[in-house]
This record gives sequence, structure tokens and C-alpha cells, in this order.
Amino acid sequence: MPHYFSSNFTLGILGGGQLGKMLLTETRKFDITTKVLDPSADAPCRIACNTFVQGALTDFDTVYNFGKDVDVLTIEIENVNVDALKKLQSEGVKVYPTPQTIELIQNKATQKQFYTTHNIPTAPFHRFESLANLQKAVAKEQITLPFVWKSARFGYDGNGVKIVRQLPDLSLLPEGECIAENLVPFAKELAVIVARNVSGEASTYPVVEMEFHPEANQVEYVLCPARISEEIAQKARAIAVQVAEAFQVVGLLAVELFLTAEGEVLVNEVAPRPHNSGHYSIEAAYTNQFEQHLRAILDLPLGNTDSKVAGVMVNLVGAEGYQGDVIYENIEQILAMQGVTPHIYGKRETRPFRKMGHVTIVNKDIEKARAIAEKVKQTIKVISH
Amino acid sequence: MPHYFSSNFTLGILGGGQLGKMLLTETRKFDITTKVLDPSADAPCRIACNTFVQGALTDFDTVYNFGKDVDVLTIEIENVNVDALKKLQSEGVKVYPTPQTIELIQNKATQKQFYTTHNIPTAPFHRFESLANLQKAVAKEQITLPFVWKSARFGYDGNGVKIVRQLPDLSLLPEGECIAENLVPFAKELAVIVARNVSGEASTYPVVEMEFHPEANQVEYVLCPARISEEIAQKARAIAVQVAEAFQVVGLLAVELFLTAEGEVLVNEVAPRPHNSGHYSIEAAYTNQFEQHLRAILDLPLGNTDSKVAGVMVNLVGAEGYQGDVIYENIEQILAMQGVTPHIYGKRETRPFRKMGHVTIVNKDIEKARAIAEKVKQTIKVISH
Repeated sequence: MPHYFSSNFTLGILGGGQLGKMLLTETRKFDITTKVLDPSADAPCRIACNTFVQGALTDFDTVYNFGKDVDVLTIEIENVNVDALKKLQSEGVKVYPTPQTIELIQNKATQKQFYTTHNIPTAPFHRFESLANLQKAVAKEQITLPFVWKSARFGYDGNGVKIVRQLPDLSLLPEGECIAENLVPFAKELAVIVARNVSGEASTYPVVEMEFHPEANQVEYVLCPARISEEIAQKARAIAVQVAEAFQVVGLLAVELFLTAEGEVLVNEVAPRPHNSGHYSIEAAYTNQFEQHLRAILDLPLGNTDSKVAGVMVNLVGAEGYQGDVIYENIEQILAMQGVTPHIYGKRETRPFRKMGHVTIVNKDIEKARAIAEKVKQTIKVISH
Repeated sequence: MPHYFSSNFTLGILGGGQLGKMLLTETRKFDITTKVLDPSADAPCRIACNTFVQGALTDFDTVYNFGKDVDVLTIEIENVNVDALKKLQSEGVKVYPTPQTIELIQNKATQKQFYTTHNIPTAPFHRFESLANLQKAVAKEQITLPFVWKSARFGYDGNGVKIVRQLPDLSLLPEGECIAENLVPFAKELAVIVARNVSGEASTYPVVEMEFHPEANQVEYVLCPARISEEIAQKARAIAVQVAEAFQVVGLLAVELFLTAEGEVLVNEVAPRPHNSGHYSIEAAYTNQFEQHLRAILDLPLGNTDSKVAGVMVNLVGAEGYQGDVIYENIEQILAMQGVTPHIYGKRETRPFRKMGHVTIVNKDIEKARAIAEKVKQTIKVISH
């Protein structure tokens, strides 16, 4: 076992956003030397890493040169140059998740195809090489409305996903490879984070539940544990492990799931990295998802994924109508509420709907945490000067 | 209320050791801009602060120049230049704890005198301006052996404290102002961390218990909660608040206490900053001591000091016989144990008894945590290459 702690061992991280920043909290706790690549000079990871390199994550040379002198290379975002990772891997750099896993997941069409190939339950879909082909299929009534359009490449935070309900919606879609997925009427949206270390040891976090705003189609709360039966929870965790094993993931895999009214559990999509749905774990779990990711990619024993207390997470997004230097209005009021921890990502400028931070509310009683979360959401506002 | 988060507000921290490092984890979480002063170029706080300044904490000009452009100035070590802090305070910099509080506490003789003046229970003592005066008092039998000798100035980690049992011990003591304290036969050594914010709101953490090695006179485990009656716990917390109010502390005050066989609670000594006895709170408490310190000095509402689970803390100190580049032998074995979190401070070089890190063990059951802590202590070894 190499000496990772207070040594010359270096962990490279592609991406310097909030996920990277929260990962750095754990590398600091273990005193692991880190090097971070991000295109922005103001990336949240700028400080707390040992070395910061500014550059494009999608550029072959940049990623290759960045990765050449690290011992293990990981990601906090999937949109990275996979060819450079493959070259690094062939030269002996340990890349986790592997470029092969990242490549399968990067493309949503390949990802969906993978589920079908591996008998993993997912919503029925069709794959199209171009928007024109999709439009033709609709014209020929091979595809019926409504359906869910998903860009194959790099959708992020709801970008790249649209519900097509009427024909005119079709003309508003951007060009490119895509899939058309049956619109599944789901009862709940769930997620399970799986950790799998280099040796193949796998472990799942409890199932979380995404609660949506009744009008706006936006996740409002992530609750852990999900308010579902033990039977459904076990099924969801088993499917998540099946997915992680199939992808041979090393590190974390966040598996987003649909629970149908009939109790069916379908895989929606996955992310091979720490995930918004696991942020609650920083305050609630015995081992938070970021520490668990480190344990997995360094082939250390995985930690206990159980929760000490129930947790609810609320995203802090920029309020509509505000752009500029951020102010977290009424943050002192939410700090006065029980079990409330804000996480401020360190982006100086707010924009409407920009993810600026999150707030975790923990409590022995999930319903109490949920009630306080609602007060938090009504109180704090992300605005500008 | 000023905007502390993602703003130009700057918090200065005197001292860049492990306490500062763990405080920086919280400033990062809230995205508070920080500036740290430490004499060592390799200080654990070197990264994760926004600005690092290398310089002596005891030098007037260094501290004054460092503090001139910060908004709030705090400490992670008491041994700082108080005159510079007073000047900064007079010029409008908010210094918490105040230089007046630090000055009272810095000198153990003044500190002890303060308890007597404020009717705070403490072991009886005599104060001496010099070692010669103490020796004279012993010769005249004004002081009887055994007693506890304490240097008035800057004892640290057992340095500056000696039990004088026989006359020859007297000649081994160093020169300087000191106190001679009655040797209290205590049943347990306890500690309570009090937080008090700028507005005067005060809150105590649960009482912790320091468990000593039966032979070596060294703290082996810090347990939270202490295994004492509720009545004693309430008494200890009340005395701790009394001490914090008397000192008009802003920030944290760690109050170390003796519990006698008769159930008497006596103040041993205090530290106006985050403290080793509160490290368990990172994993166990709703609000850890470092976040609480920030809340207090920024006049934010104090957080919940209750524990989610029981916690036991074990210090990681350099093993005897090893000096040089550190190795944490068997750390992967302790990571496989339930609820175990190592904190590695980031000191490259180990020396015998040097504080290199700590390990927290949490569990719903304090006895289980205690049993695992013992295994941790038997397993991990801080050695060198």
C-alpha cells in the first residue's frame, strides 16, 4: 500500500468546481497532495489544492500534460478529454473512474444502450444520430408524443433535457445526436450513490428522494432517507450496485432512478463522481461521499455509509432578476435554525439559477428536518448588490 | 450585519497550525476570505487560506502589520503579541478574543488569581515572581510537598507543568514566574467548551472526559459524553459559563476541570480558542467547535452543540525512536474499523510525542466507540521512513 498521507503521492483532479472543492476538504483532512485543473482562474478549488493549473478540461494536450506527473487522476465532472486519459492510463497513471467508464457514461445514448445490453431496467428509448433523424421518425409516427428528448452529449443541470409535448417543440431542439425516451409517469425520483474501490469492494448509501416543486419542474429538496418502503429501498440499492458493477466503476457512481406507481425501479441516468444528491452526507453520514470517493480511488477500505441522523438538502441557486456580486440575504436567520449548515461554493458572481451553494438540515426526525428545510428555502435569498 | 460570505471581508488568524487548519475547513465551507500568520513556511495552514504570511507571532511589528488590513482578527494559539493586538483594537480592528482576555489567560498566575477574584472554584495556590522565591517559601515550609509547579508563561502540552514530590525536584525547575498549586487528588479530568458571541450569547458543549493512561501520565482518550452524572455535568457546564462570562470571552473558551472524589468541580486552566478536547465535535456534534468559533467571533447565532452520536478522540503522536519523514503505519487498517476518521495535520516530519494528527471514533454507543478507540490506538503507529 503506497503512503498517501503527508507524502509526495499526488492526486490530480480534473475540474475545480464545488464538487472538487468539497473533495479538497477531505484531501486536506488526510493531508493528501493535490493538483487541480480548471478553465476558470476563479474556480472554487483555486485555494486548498497544492497546485492549481488553469486550462481546458476538453483539450488533449492540456489534460495530458496536467496528468503526466500525478499518481492517481480523478474527475469532478464528466466532460473531460477521454483520449488524453487513455494515453495517461497506458503510460501507468491510475485514472479512476477509468476513461472507458467515463466514455460510456459521457454519451447519454451509449449510456442508455449499455443499460439495455446489461439488462438494467430503464425507460424505453430510441437513439438518433441527428435531430433530422428524430424529426423524420416523428413524422413517420415511429415515435409518438409526448416523449423526453435528451442530448447525447453533455447535458448539465437540466440543460440537454426537454419534454417534447407538441410538434412545434421539436423545431426548438438543438442539433446533434440524441435519444427520445418514453415519458415515464413516476411516483418519485430517487438516487443511490454507490462506491466501488479498486479491489472491487462495493457499498451503497441509503436511498435519497428528490422532492420536486409542485409547479416548477425543479428539484427542491433531497431527503435522506427516502420516504419509501424497505422493499423498494433494497431493490433500488441492488439495481445501483448492478449498474456500478456493469460499468466497473472505481470511485463513486450516483445512480438516478425513477420509482413508478407500480413499484418498478428504473435507471434514469448516472454520474461517475460525487453528486448533488449526496451532499447531505457531509453532515448526516458516518462517511461522507467525498471521503468515500477518496477511499475508493485509493483502494482503501470503504467507510460506513449509514446516517447518524436524517438529512435534507436544499440547493442555493441565484434568484431571478439578480446578476453580479453575490449576497446571501438572511443567511444569519437560517444559521439560527436547528441543525442548519450552509455551504457556500465560493462563486463571487450570482446569475439566475446558478448553483451558488447548498444548505443541509439534519435532525433525528426526517419530518422535522423537512419542515426546517422549507423555512430555510423561504428565508434565504441569493441576490446581488 | 456585514456580508462575510463570498465577499471582501477578511478574517485574520494568528497561528497556522492544526487548529488553524481545521478552522480553515470552516472558512472554506462558508467562503470567508482568510489571511494567516505563522512563523513556519511549512505551516499546516499554508494552503486553504487566501493569504499566508510568514512571521513571528510574538513580534509587535509583524503582528501589527499583519492585522492592519483585516476586519476581524482571531487566534489559534495564545502566545501572540498582545500589545500589537491592543493597538489594532484601538484602531478599529475587531480582535476576538480581545487582547485583554488573552493577556489575562496568557499568564497562568494572573489566570489563577482571576479565578480567586471571581469566586471561581480552583485548587489553592501560591504565586511567585521567581523560582528563588518559591524555593525560599519551601525552605520556610510556607509550601509543603508535594505540589504542582506551573510556569506562568507559555506552558504547552504538559511543558511548564511539573509535580514536585521531593526537594531535589525543586532544583530541576526552570527560572521564572510561577505558581505552586495544591496537588488535587481528582477522580476525573473533564473539559467544557463554551462559545460566546459578540452579542454575549453563550452556549456550552457537552462535558468531555479525558482518560489517562494508567501508567504514563498522558491523556489517551477524550470521550464525549463524559461518563458522569447529569448533576455533575450541569455543574461543570454552569462553572464553564461562569468562567467565560467573567473573562468576557468572545469566541471559544475551553475550560479544563478537575472532578474530585467528593463531586467538587474545580477549574484547572482555560484556553480562549478551539481545543484538542473539542476535536470529537467535527464528527459527533451538530455544530463543530471550529464552525462555532466562527459563528461567535462574527456575531452570528450560535449553533446546536448537542451530539448526533457519541465520540472518542485519540491523539496521533510521533512514536518514540522515530524522527524524519512521517509514515502512518496501518492507517488502512483503522480505516476499515467502524466510524473511524483520521485527521492528518500535515506535518511532514515526525518527532517523538509530536502531535501529528488525531483520530475520531463515533458510534451510537460510547462504550463501543471506546472499544474501537483502543483498537485504533493499538493499531496505528506514527513512525518515519
